[in-house]
Amino acid sequence: MIIALTGGVGGAKLVAGLARALPADDLTVVVNTADDFDHLGLRIMPDLDSVLYALAGLNDRERGWGRADETWHCRDAMAALGAPTWFNLGDKDLALHILRTHWLHTGQSYAGVARMLARRLGLDARVVPMSDQPVATMVLSGDGEIPFQDYFVRRRCEPRAGGFRYAGIDAALPLPQWYEPLAGGCCAGVVICPSNPFVSIEPILALRGVREAIAHWGVPVVAVSPIVGGRALKGPAAKMMAELGMDVSPAGVAERYRGLLGGMVVDDADAGQVARLRDMGLAVEVTDTVMTDTGVAESLARTALAMVGRLRREREAG
Amino acid sequence: MIIALTGGVGGAKLVAGLARALPADDLTVVVNTADDFDHLGLRIMPDLDSVLYALAGLNDRERGWGRADETWHCRDAMAALGAPTWFNLGDKDLALHILRTHWLHTGQSYAGVARMLARRLGLDARVVPMSDQPVATMVLSGDGEIPFQDYFVRRRCEPRAGGFRYAGIDAALPLPQWYEPLAGGCCAGVVICPSNPFVSIEPILALRGVREAIAHWGVPVVAVSPIVGGRALKGPAAKMMAELGMDVSPAGVAERYRGLLGGMVVDDADAGQVARLRDMGLAVEVTDTVMTDTGVAESLARTALAMVGRLRREREAG
Repeated sequence: MIIALTGGVGGAKLVAGLARALPADDLTVVVNTADDFDHLGLRIMPDLDSVLYALAGLNDRERGWGRADETWHCRDAMAALGAPTWFNLGDKDLALHILRTHWLHTGQSYAGVARMLARRLGLDARVVPMSDQPVATMVLSGDGEIPFQDYFVRRRCEPRAGGFRYAGIDAALPLPQWYEPLAGGCCAGVVICPSNPFVSIEPILALRGVREAIAHWGVPVVAVSPIVGGRALKGPAAKMMAELGMDVSPAGVAERYRGLLGGMVVDDADAGQVARLRDMGLAVEVTDTVMTDTGVAESLARTALAMVGRLRREREAG
Repeated sequence: MIIALTGGVGGAKLVAGLARALPADDLTVVVNTADDFDHLGLRIMPDLDSVLYALAGLNDRERGWGRADETWHCRDAMAALGAPTWFNLGDKDLALHILRTHWLHTGQSYAGVARMLARRLGLDARVVPMSDQPVATMVLSGDGEIPFQDYFVRRRCEPRAGGFRYAGIDAALPLPQWYEPLAGGCCAGVVICPSNPFVSIEPILALRGVREAIAHWGVPVVAVSPIVGGRALKGPAAKMMAELGMDVSPAGVAERYRGLLGGMVVDDADAGQVARLRDMGLAVEVTDTVMTDTGVAESLARTALAMVGRLRREREAG
């Protein structure tokens, strides 16, 4: 079984590629929940929804987030009533938020909600929130701690990021749906999707026992670089890396994952990074990582999976 | 001060007329809450919203309920997710449901929610829910007790109504915003809007102390008949009256309000009822009660208010 760790929209695209490249039973998608939040009483789980929409083909490719053919009548009516409008709620998107919130209030867990939504969207992929306990990323800045969606949407990532805190992480447990296979030695490899290291991937890795289980079993871990040509295709990853004094490059990301990572897939634009990454002891593949369609996503997924396979064989041989 | 008791769409139209005929300070609109319910975790208050939409000019006059220029994208997306669709939630309408539910969860009362929504819709009318405690109309039928919205929307009023129970009524108190003026002798008259007697008006009248306060002060009560030419313009009032063995006529309604009512405004179609109503000791006016536009509604409101004034002067003189 392959475990894919994913956060936002770039990660969701690779997940759609992985779902085309693997039988449903061979893939478990672990979704970051640390940017979930409550807005107007609705439980918003942006990363889960990005994965669900991408897998169901409902995602908006132009805008880059939310649902295709979206409309905004409820949002506009709420704005007319003086409600806060900084977080955009589309009419179709609201369907998931309303049903999820209702199910959570009637006793469902995050895992149950993800399973029900996936099933009702006709998906056979196994999509699992990282934890059933709430975790909330706080961005540490000169203005103090800023809740992630506040930083990301309301303040358009403008505050300088000095670090991150995952509130609730000590009380959160990784869900057994993905943690038990991992801790039990049944995971053939981990693919880290091209998601923000700080706010998408590290909350998952910070859950109790996760890094230890990967190390214990020597699970091969392959990342697809979220940095392409010195920039993030979407989101604040590059800006955060610069503010944290890191090298804004695949090598900078690999440095962050040091000790965990066995290999990295980088974009053609970063072919110059190969030697440096190999010097870090990593396997490297260079390919097109800009997922303009599901064909590219599937091809990229197959490249990452092939690297996982090679690393596993090397480990078994060694 | 005039108190108007109102339930559904017909009542809301007369309320809009009353609001044009009276200074804002002279009118308190008391709204039935006994057909409120929870749907997919949202608190739906249909009668309150009908009044708010009518006063704000946002109501759909063709369809007869909900908001004008409504769209249904969220509903359709929820249907695709297998959610129950028997209760229609429009995208714009959802704005009120979401904000109200959020405010209620954060500690607001029904009265507070009504006040906030009215203010944000730019209304200066005083719109007050009948009570801050939940009351739920149950329709007694051969199939047992049916919650009102289930009977009204899902089952399209098909079950035979044998009676009604207002669950929670014994624990509910009329809100002081309207009950204190009434009980304190500061109410110049009560207008019963052309709403369903059983499921809109009687829950309000059944609240502790209301009938007693009206009787104690001899408050003149005038009803606009919800029955026109043997039929209800909308809703199940006529069907219910027939099933309960009542005369489906203004006189049948007046009989139901016996002991409370001082006068009734009936439609031109029911001019033949005048003698019978006068024999019951009631003042009667005959006019156009079919509120096809706000001009008719205002004229009808003025007719009812004039009758209230006459009854009050007669009482003071007598």
